[in-house]
Amino acid sequence: MTWAEFAADKSARIKSSIPKEWLIKDLPTEEVSVMEFPKKSGIMSPEEIAITESSATDLVAKMAAGQLTSVAVTTAFCKRAALAHQLLNCCLEFFPEIALARAKELDEYYEKNKKVVGPLHGLPISLKDQFRIKGLETTMGYVAWIGKYEKEDSVLVTLLAKAGAVFYVKTSVPQSLMVCETVNNVIGRTVNPRNKNWSCGGSSGGEGAMVGFRGGIIGVGTDIGGSIRVPSAFNFLYGLRPSHGRLPYAKMANSMEGQETVHSVCGPLCHSIDDMKLFVTSVLAEGPWDYDSKVIPMPWRQAEEDAVNSKINSGGLTLGFFNCDGNVLPHPPILRGIQTVVDTMKKNGHNVVPWEPYKHPYAVDLINGIYASDGGTDIFTTLKESGEPAVPNFADLIHPSLPKIDMNELWEVHLKKWSYQSEYLAQIKALEAKLGKELDAIIAPITPTAAIRHNQFKYYGYASAINLLDFTSVVVPVTFADKNLDVKNADFKPISDIDKIVQDEYDPEAYHGAPVAVQIVGRRLTEEKVMAIAKEVGRLLGNEITP
Amino acid sequence: MTWAEFAADKSARIKSSIPKEWLIKDLPTEEVSVMEFPKKSGIMSPEEIAITESSATDLVAKMAAGQLTSVAVTTAFCKRAALAHQLLNCCLEFFPEIALARAKELDEYYEKNKKVVGPLHGLPISLKDQFRIKGLETTMGYVAWIGKYEKEDSVLVTLLAKAGAVFYVKTSVPQSLMVCETVNNVIGRTVNPRNKNWSCGGSSGGEGAMVGFRGGIIGVGTDIGGSIRVPSAFNFLYGLRPSHGRLPYAKMANSMEGQETVHSVCGPLCHSIDDMKLFVTSVLAEGPWDYDSKVIPMPWRQAEEDAVNSKINSGGLTLGFFNCDGNVLPHPPILRGIQTVVDTMKKNGHNVVPWEPYKHPYAVDLINGIYASDGGTDIFTTLKESGEPAVPNFADLIHPSLPKIDMNELWEVHLKKWSYQSEYLAQIKALEAKLGKELDAIIAPITPTAAIRHNQFKYYGYASAINLLDFTSVVVPVTFADKNLDVKNADFKPISDIDKIVQDEYDPEAYHGAPVAVQIVGRRLTEEKVMAIAKEVGRLLGNEITP
Repeated sequence: MTWAEFAADKSARIKSSIPKEWLIKDLPTEEVSVMEFPKKSGIMSPEEIAITESSATDLVAKMAAGQLTSVAVTTAFCKRAALAHQLLNCCLEFFPEIALARAKELDEYYEKNKKVVGPLHGLPISLKDQFRIKGLETTMGYVAWIGKYEKEDSVLVTLLAKAGAVFYVKTSVPQSLMVCETVNNVIGRTVNPRNKNWSCGGSSGGEGAMVGFRGGIIGVGTDIGGSIRVPSAFNFLYGLRPSHGRLPYAKMANSMEGQETVHSVCGPLCHSIDDMKLFVTSVLAEGPWDYDSKVIPMPWRQAEEDAVNSKINSGGLTLGFFNCDGNVLPHPPILRGIQTVVDTMKKNGHNVVPWEPYKHPYAVDLINGIYASDGGTDIFTTLKESGEPAVPNFADLIHPSLPKIDMNELWEVHLKKWSYQSEYLAQIKALEAKLGKELDAIIAPITPTAAIRHNQFKYYGYASAINLLDFTSVVVPVTFADKNLDVKNADFKPISDIDKIVQDEYDPEAYHGAPVAVQIVGRRLTEEKVMAIAKEVGRLLGNEITP
Repeated sequence: MTWAEFAADKSARIKSSIPKEWLIKDLPTEEVSVMEFPKKSGIMSPEEIAITESSATDLVAKMAAGQLTSVAVTTAFCKRAALAHQLLNCCLEFFPEIALARAKELDEYYEKNKKVVGPLHGLPISLKDQFRIKGLETTMGYVAWIGKYEKEDSVLVTLLAKAGAVFYVKTSVPQSLMVCETVNNVIGRTVNPRNKNWSCGGSSGGEGAMVGFRGGIIGVGTDIGGSIRVPSAFNFLYGLRPSHGRLPYAKMANSMEGQETVHSVCGPLCHSIDDMKLFVTSVLAEGPWDYDSKVIPMPWRQAEEDAVNSKINSGGLTLGFFNCDGNVLPHPPILRGIQTVVDTMKKNGHNVVPWEPYKHPYAVDLINGIYASDGGTDIFTTLKESGEPAVPNFADLIHPSLPKIDMNELWEVHLKKWSYQSEYLAQIKALEAKLGKELDAIIAPITPTAAIRHNQFKYYGYASAINLLDFTSVVVPVTFADKNLDVKNADFKPISDIDKIVQDEYDPEAYHGAPVAVQIVGRRLTEEKVMAIAKEVGRLLGNEITP
C-alpha cells in the first residue's frame, strides 16, 4: 500500500465511525460559517443543543444532582462532534460506542451509589490526537503511525478517567505538531467553524475547531510554541498554557520526544475560566505528581486566586501591556484588541502600564534554534517511514538543511535560556520597584493576526517567547475583526522581513469577523493567579459567563 | 608561568590571608585527629570555642536579642577556619577582613535600628568555592581559573547576604567537582579532621571538613552525585540535597555548565536539622523564584512538617529501608548503621518495612552516561588551558575516550530517565497499596563505606541514583565504625566487579572510628517532610540537638 492508500483507509475508517443517523445529507457548500448548522441540522434535539451550549461546570453539577445523565450529555456531544467532523474535518479518532458504554457505566454507578466517581463525573472531554488511549491509534498526523494501536493510556487520560471524564474523540493536528495550522496527509485540513477560509489554528487545531463549534465543552491540547493558545484565539476560546510541571505529560505521543530544552505542556481549551478551573482542579486533585515524575507536587492554591480577587475589590490589579514585540507589528484587529483590554481594565479601576518586552526577538531566535536542534532528524525519519511529503509551512520552523547541534552547543543554549529567563525576572522586579507595586500580569498579543487564512501562519514569536520563559499564559477572547474599524495602516513601515510578510497579509474584507484574542501572561507556575486575572478581564469584556 | 607556579602563588596567597596571630606555631604531626586542637591551640578564647561549638539557631537568636555581636561570632569562626586551613588544607579563599567589616556594619545596623536585617543577621556562612562573590576568585579547583575575579555574586550569595549572612571563606573542591574526594592541583588534598588518613569526601569536601571541624556552622555545597551528602556523611554532619528547583543555583560557577539532564543543586551541610531549617527557611523567605527562573515558587510549607509531627505522635511514620542496591554491598559499619536506624525507629513505634531498590544498577549506568555525555570536552578543555593533569580517580567518571553523544541519543536518555523516575513512583504507589499507608521516606546507605581512605572512593551509586530520581535526601549521622563490632565478612561473595573492589578496601582497623551515616530519601520536592523525619531519626539516635 502507498502512503496515500493508508491515509485514505484511515480517513474512511473515521467516517465510518459516525452512525448513519448522524450523517449530514446535504453538506452546506455556500456558507462560510457552520456555527448555526447544528440547530437546523435536524440531527440534534433542542435538549441536545442546550446541553452542548451549556457549560462544563453546569453539566457536572446537574449530573451530580441526578438532573442529567451522562448518556444524555455524551450523546449530545457525540452528535455534535459527528457534525463537526463532517463540516470541519477535525477528527482523527471518533468512538461514540466506547463513550456511550462508559457513560452508561457512570450512570449506573451513580444510580447505585448515589454519588459521583469524581468532579468530572460523566463529562465528555475531547482530546488532541497526541493523547494515548489503550486500544486506539494515535497517528498525530503521521501516516507512518496509522495502524499502531496503543497498549496504555497517557497519564492525563488515566487521571481524567479517574475524575469521571468520558472520552469520545481525538482531534486532528498538523503533521509533526510543529505548525500553528492543522493540516496533515492523513485526513487533510481542518477548517475554522466560523469561516472555512480561516485556519482553526494549530497544533491543537482540531480541539480549537471542535470546542469552538461546541462539539466539545473542554478540549485538551498541548503547547510548545502556541499550540493551545493559537487555536483558542482563533476560535474565540479561553486557553491555558500552564507552566511546565503543573499538569502531567507522561506517556503522551510526541514529535522530538525527549527534547527537554523547551517542554511541551498540556492544557485545556474551553469557553470560560470556570470550566478551566474545573479541569485544572480536577486533575490536581488526583495528585498527578505521584504518576509523572515531572509534575511538581503543588495542589491548587486557592489563596493565590483569593489574593487576586482581594486586589480586584480594593486598589485594583497592576497590569503591564505591550502590542509589539519588536519583530512583528500585529494587524489592526489585534492592536484594537489590546487597546480594548487596556481601556476596559483602566476604566474599571485597574492600573495598566506599558511593558517593554525584553529582548523578544532574541528569545524567538533562541527557541527556533531549539525546535531545530536535531536538524529535523526525528521528524524526517518519521516522514520517510511512510514516504509522505512534508505539509506546507512546515519548513518555516524545521527543514533538513539545518545542522544538528552538538552537546556543548546545546549546553550553551541552556545557559542562554536560563540567563534570559532570569534577566526577564529582573526586568519585572525593576518595574515593580519603580511602581512600588507587584506586577500582576502582562497583557500581550498571542498572534499578530486574527484567525488567519490558510497557509498564512508565519510568525510564532508572540506565543513562543512565552514558552521560552515557561511563563503561565491564559488566552482570553476579546472581539472580532471589523473591516470598518480595523482599516489597513497606510503608514506601515516594516521593522523586519517577517514584519513585512505578516503585514502584507492583512485584508480588512477577508478578516472581517475573525476572532481576536489576547494572552494574559504571568510568571512561571502562577496558574491560579493568571486564571483569576483572565476571568476578571473576560468578565469586564462581557466574554466570561459568571453564574 | 607554569601551571604549578600559578598554583603555588595562589596557595601562598591563601596562606598569607591568615593573620599572623592566628598562625599555628607547631603543627601537630603525630595525631591523626585534629578535633581537639582548637581548645588547646592558645589562639581561641573559651568564649570563641563556645561560640563555634554552639548552633546557628542559638547564635542568630542571641545576636537578634543583642546578647552577642556579629563581630564576636565572626571573629570566632574566622579564627577556627584559619586553624582548619592550616590543619586540613581546606580553603580556596579566606577573607576575614571583608567578613569582619561586614559584621561590624551589621552590628552598627542593629545598634542603630534595634532590629536585625534578616533571619541570618550576623551569622557566618561558609561557601564551597563554586559560589561567586564579587571581587574574589572562584577557581573551583581549576588552575586555569586562578586570577579571574568575579564581577557579580551568585544568586544564593545575594539572598543569603540579604538575609544577614556574613561570608568569610570559600572552601576547597576536587578539580572539576566530579569526584567524591577533595583534591586539586591548586592547593592539593583536603583531609578529614577526625583522621588525616581519611577523605573529607567531595565534591563539597572543603565544606565537610570546615563544618565538621566547626570552622563553619552552616556550610553551603552542591550535589549532582553525592557532593553534599558524601562530605556530610564523612564528617558526621547533616546534609540536605534538595530537589532541583527548590533553592537557587543561578550564577554559580560549574563544570559542564548548561548540562541539564541531571541538575546539580545547592544545599546546606550543618550540625542539626534546626540549623538546616534556619538556612532553608531564610533562603525561601527571600523569594528566590524572583531571581532564578529555575526556582519553583514554593515557600516553606510548614503544614508538611506538621503532618510528619502528627504522625510521629500518633501511629508512627512508615519507612522503607534497604542496605544493598544490587550493585555494591556496603561495608560492615554501614550495614550496622542501617540496622541501627531500623531498630531504633521500630523500637520507637514507627513502621519500618523493606524497600526493594528498583533497578538501581540501571539508574547508576544511566547517570554515569549523563555525566560523560559531552565525552569530557568541557572539563578537558579547561584542564588544557593551564596544562595541569587530571587528579586521581577522575577517570572513574569521565575520561577522554568516552564518545560525545548526539542530540537524538540525548533525547533517548531523557526518555529513559523520565520513564525510570515514573516507574519508581509506581513502585512506591504499589507498596503503599499493599501497606494501606503512605510511605513517608526510605532509609538507605549514602556511601558503601564509612569516611573513606584517600583515593579509595570508587562507587557513587548510592548517592547518584537519588540524583537521577531528583528525590529529596537528608543525610543523618548515625555512629562510628568500630573494629570490634564491624568485623570483615568472611563469607562475602561479590555480585559485581565494583562490589569486589569496594569490599576489598574494608579494613576494620583502618576504619575504626570513621563516621557512619544514612540518607533519608523522600519523593521529589519534599524537603519539609524529609527534614522533619530526619530530625526524628536524629533525635532518637541521640544525634540531633533539640532545644
